[in-house]
Amino acid sequence: MSLLHDPHHDGSPFYVSDEAPELGTSVTVRVRTSAADPVEAVWLRTTYDAEPVFHPMSATTAGDVVWWEGELPVHNPVTHYRFLLVRGVEQEWLTGAGPVGHDLPDSTDFRIAAHPPAPDWGRDGVVYQVFPDRFARSAAADGREVPDWALPAEWDDEVVFEGSDPRTPMQLYGGDLDGVVERLDHVAAVGADILYTTPVFPGESNHRYNATTFTEVDPLLGGSEAYARLSAAVHERGWRILGDLTTNHTGDTHEWFLSAVDDPRDPHRSFYYFDDDGTYANWMGHGTLPKINHANLDVRHAMVDGPDSVVGRWLQPPYDVDGWRIDVANMTGRLGAIDVAHEVARTVRATAAALHEDPWVIGEHNHDASGDVDGDGWHGTMNYSGFSWPVWSWLRDPASPARPFGRPVPVPRREGAAVVDTFRAWQGALGWRATASSWNILGSHDSARIRTVVGGDASVHRVAAGLQFTMPGVPMVFAGDEIGLEGVNGEDARRPMPWHRREEWDEQTLTTYADLARLRREHPALRRGGLRWAHVDADTIAYLREHPEQTVLVVARRAAAPGFSLPLEPGRHVFGSEPGGADLAAGPDGIEVPSATGPRIDVWSLPD
Amino acid sequence: MSLLHDPHHDGSPFYVSDEAPELGTSVTVRVRTSAADPVEAVWLRTTYDAEPVFHPMSATTAGDVVWWEGELPVHNPVTHYRFLLVRGVEQEWLTGAGPVGHDLPDSTDFRIAAHPPAPDWGRDGVVYQVFPDRFARSAAADGREVPDWALPAEWDDEVVFEGSDPRTPMQLYGGDLDGVVERLDHVAAVGADILYTTPVFPGESNHRYNATTFTEVDPLLGGSEAYARLSAAVHERGWRILGDLTTNHTGDTHEWFLSAVDDPRDPHRSFYYFDDDGTYANWMGHGTLPKINHANLDVRHAMVDGPDSVVGRWLQPPYDVDGWRIDVANMTGRLGAIDVAHEVARTVRATAAALHEDPWVIGEHNHDASGDVDGDGWHGTMNYSGFSWPVWSWLRDPASPARPFGRPVPVPRREGAAVVDTFRAWQGALGWRATASSWNILGSHDSARIRTVVGGDASVHRVAAGLQFTMPGVPMVFAGDEIGLEGVNGEDARRPMPWHRREEWDEQTLTTYADLARLRREHPALRRGGLRWAHVDADTIAYLREHPEQTVLVVARRAAAPGFSLPLEPGRHVFGSEPGGADLAAGPDGIEVPSATGPRIDVWSLPD
Repeated sequence: MSLLHDPHHDGSPFYVSDEAPELGTSVTVRVRTSAADPVEAVWLRTTYDAEPVFHPMSATTAGDVVWWEGELPVHNPVTHYRFLLVRGVEQEWLTGAGPVGHDLPDSTDFRIAAHPPAPDWGRDGVVYQVFPDRFARSAAADGREVPDWALPAEWDDEVVFEGSDPRTPMQLYGGDLDGVVERLDHVAAVGADILYTTPVFPGESNHRYNATTFTEVDPLLGGSEAYARLSAAVHERGWRILGDLTTNHTGDTHEWFLSAVDDPRDPHRSFYYFDDDGTYANWMGHGTLPKINHANLDVRHAMVDGPDSVVGRWLQPPYDVDGWRIDVANMTGRLGAIDVAHEVARTVRATAAALHEDPWVIGEHNHDASGDVDGDGWHGTMNYSGFSWPVWSWLRDPASPARPFGRPVPVPRREGAAVVDTFRAWQGALGWRATASSWNILGSHDSARIRTVVGGDASVHRVAAGLQFTMPGVPMVFAGDEIGLEGVNGEDARRPMPWHRREEWDEQTLTTYADLARLRREHPALRRGGLRWAHVDADTIAYLREHPEQTVLVVARRAAAPGFSLPLEPGRHVFGSEPGGADLAAGPDGIEVPSATGPRIDVWSLPD
Repeated sequence: MSLLHDPHHDGSPFYVSDEAPELGTSVTVRVRTSAADPVEAVWLRTTYDAEPVFHPMSATTAGDVVWWEGELPVHNPVTHYRFLLVRGVEQEWLTGAGPVGHDLPDSTDFRIAAHPPAPDWGRDGVVYQVFPDRFARSAAADGREVPDWALPAEWDDEVVFEGSDPRTPMQLYGGDLDGVVERLDHVAAVGADILYTTPVFPGESNHRYNATTFTEVDPLLGGSEAYARLSAAVHERGWRILGDLTTNHTGDTHEWFLSAVDDPRDPHRSFYYFDDDGTYANWMGHGTLPKINHANLDVRHAMVDGPDSVVGRWLQPPYDVDGWRIDVANMTGRLGAIDVAHEVARTVRATAAALHEDPWVIGEHNHDASGDVDGDGWHGTMNYSGFSWPVWSWLRDPASPARPFGRPVPVPRREGAAVVDTFRAWQGALGWRATASSWNILGSHDSARIRTVVGGDASVHRVAAGLQFTMPGVPMVFAGDEIGLEGVNGEDARRPMPWHRREEWDEQTLTTYADLARLRREHPALRRGGLRWAHVDADTIAYLREHPEQTVLVVARRAAAPGFSLPLEPGRHVFGSEPGGADLAAGPDGIEVPSATGPRIDVWSLPD
């Protein structure tokens, strides 16, 4: 069914005159309705200190479209708004989750924030995620002494990934930061320009999420000097680099924690949640991961607040990271009746903003980040809920060995309409700006690989990649996805990059990623355009990305599917994940989108 | 369509072992599914410091029903939870808004609060709202001097209600508190046992929402002594009394404000938001209603915090109010970038709890109170969004002269399914306990009268009353509704009670209210039972109220409608809003709910 007659608004420049207005000013907002489905009046409803207020909108008809325009006062730092469409005794609300024919609470209201947005370089970029132990190994790695906790592995060794196997976090492949420097040409070939590495601080594991210190980079990775070299090499290319910091906990071998255990009167004792009997709060029952007590201002100063904090120090020369991905951001500052999560998020952002022009802070949240991302905290999240799971649900192979992440059973297999409902629900909850500033991920070091989720089908994998680069949000590619690496869970997904086994690479998919990155860079509509759903059926999801400079049409098919028509002008074919794409032709009802013989995703540039 | 096969859970005793557990304990929760629609597994998902965690549930089959049971750890003061139902590669979520086939954010999660619940007397009671100037006039009123601002009116004078007429707030009919005392037998006849009066503090208007002081009761009402007499008379009957306090603003003739205006160095200056030029923040542009600055702790102490505050003082002898209805609770403590609303709500509740056994605090909120009612702030709200508007939407006469309240156009006319979707959306957003502790209102002194909304149709009015007394929530009857008074807007709704024109009363409707109050008192299922939707079509809404002691079936019709069957046991007819009700008979598919020849609402008590 075509959705192009639905009333529409989103937070993009086509519909909102200023995405980050000053508090106390106003912005112009627009709604489009279809002349074929007449609306008598559209009211802009905003909440003013939590009181609903209605503002009239004026209509202008342009062909088949009626444009409604109104002024939205930006009274609160995050101002909620929605639209009431009146048709006689019938009424419809238009919120961030789409049009709905019954009354509903405010949680999916559109919202506009007076806080500064995420940096342009972040929103326009492509992120490449490197798990340092598994990405690349420089010659210097050979000479390094292996610590006691580690089980040294050869680059071609199989990853031990069953959760209960104690070897899993101990297998040390010896990737290092100079190895990353040596492979930046590959990152360039993928089309990425933001390098995000998982933690580089020492930790007694290959993943390093159990830090022992934040004062230096792990010597096993080449130490702080190697990190400075990597940062310089990245910046030399005009790229950016992001660190990864766990603010929720440290390792139980962390110097703060050891001091706290040694002496109950040590000031670091208050950095954690110790009971009188010496037990302490930890992450999800893991005693090796003691939880940080952010209600204590000393640990906040040490970790997140100000230039000498961990957050602050690494933003400065010679490391100059351009921002942070914050691990376990959802739980940070929350324990039982205590909740200072927003204060911590705000502090991280403020510290970064004070030390660095235009930093980017992304909070990990694996279910609902909505309360944490639309204000002055995290600019965005790793968007598992709003992007990964709906994409997985649409494209998963029911027979895939991929294991679930974040739920006890694999994601369901769903048809297009339910998947679009999911996208809408999350875009409504997060808000436009936070959605567009969050990471579109097909997986990460914590989850199965997309290639495995789709049952190894390269064409379906490329459809997933196409969605990743053409939906609102910033593509974040976990190194190896672009060449078709597999993995049934997060640990298995951490397979070393097979640099010397190039014959195993899926070169077509690599080319697709590079093409998609170029496509996104060349089309402002894909980076900043709105999102208007065009057509959905079980196997097809189609949408427009609308921007004042241009509009593109994206049509994704998970299987062979018939053609359909859309009330649009013919457009030029600019991308196809499989051979055989062609320009759109005019038909009796607008344009004819051709049928597909199998999974593919195509993009057309439409006339202005 | 019958909904009784839908998977179900709610926060009632039938489904949750303890509605107010201690933090750190756990409760048993149950889900029912239909054996006819097999489910492989049900997982209980909770959030633990904002991290989703899944707990298994075990199944027991009992006839057509499968009961799933699991343990819910109460880790946070307000713990969110929901259920994941697995059927092969298909999955469904069950949240407070009902079952849904796509992923969705947490805003409709079920929730359980470790904070104490609203008092039993409140949840089991029936509230009667009196607008003192218009309810009843004692002989003493004749001798009182009319102040300069007032336009004295005779009891039979017509109310001037057009918004722009300056006489509207000035018409003084002279109702007083001893008049209320004299009419408590009428309140008893309606079946109410909680008296809620709109403000009794002096204010230069007939509504008194623009207080000039909080230190005494308006002499026009008989003064503080009369208030003490009213409170004593109410308590003598074993009833309760609630005050009404505007915490958001005072009148511009309030003693605090006058001091603040007189002398910029006066300590009361900080009670308000004054700019350097002497302008001040106010309620929605009304300079006569200067806004209170709750970021200032001095005004909090004066108004809401502690035994000497306004909130505290009137809870003590000789006034002994049993709680407060807080006016403009939604905006209280909120202004632009400032938001201390939760702190104020918490403080009001804590002050009350420290001075009174089991007080009740209800916050006025005319759209979405969800963030303000599930914690340790307001116990509930005046549930316009979750009750009044859906009821109005279902029952409104499109030709009614009733004016809108809270939106610029009258509520839409909607069919049963959309109305049930609205109930569900709001019950999901507010949570079970807050819904059940909020006020089911058909209107108030701020809105049109229900009788006018339904176009004067007494039968439809009684259907509305039936919903008010049988849906989750506490019925709050605006004095006069029970005898069929009309009013096209809030001001018009404030017509004096026609005590001496008894021939104008709708005696059948009065009897219906009394019957409904008795029914509710006699049936724990109507006071504390869960809510399971049974059947809905355009003109019919049917539901079960389930309780460990009993279950009742409610069937509401807004028009003549055919019979239908439900998979239930025959039950005894215990209430009908029109003549002709009968016990339920067994049919081939359970029970046969009889057809209706017009608007009516019936209640049957089902066998255990």
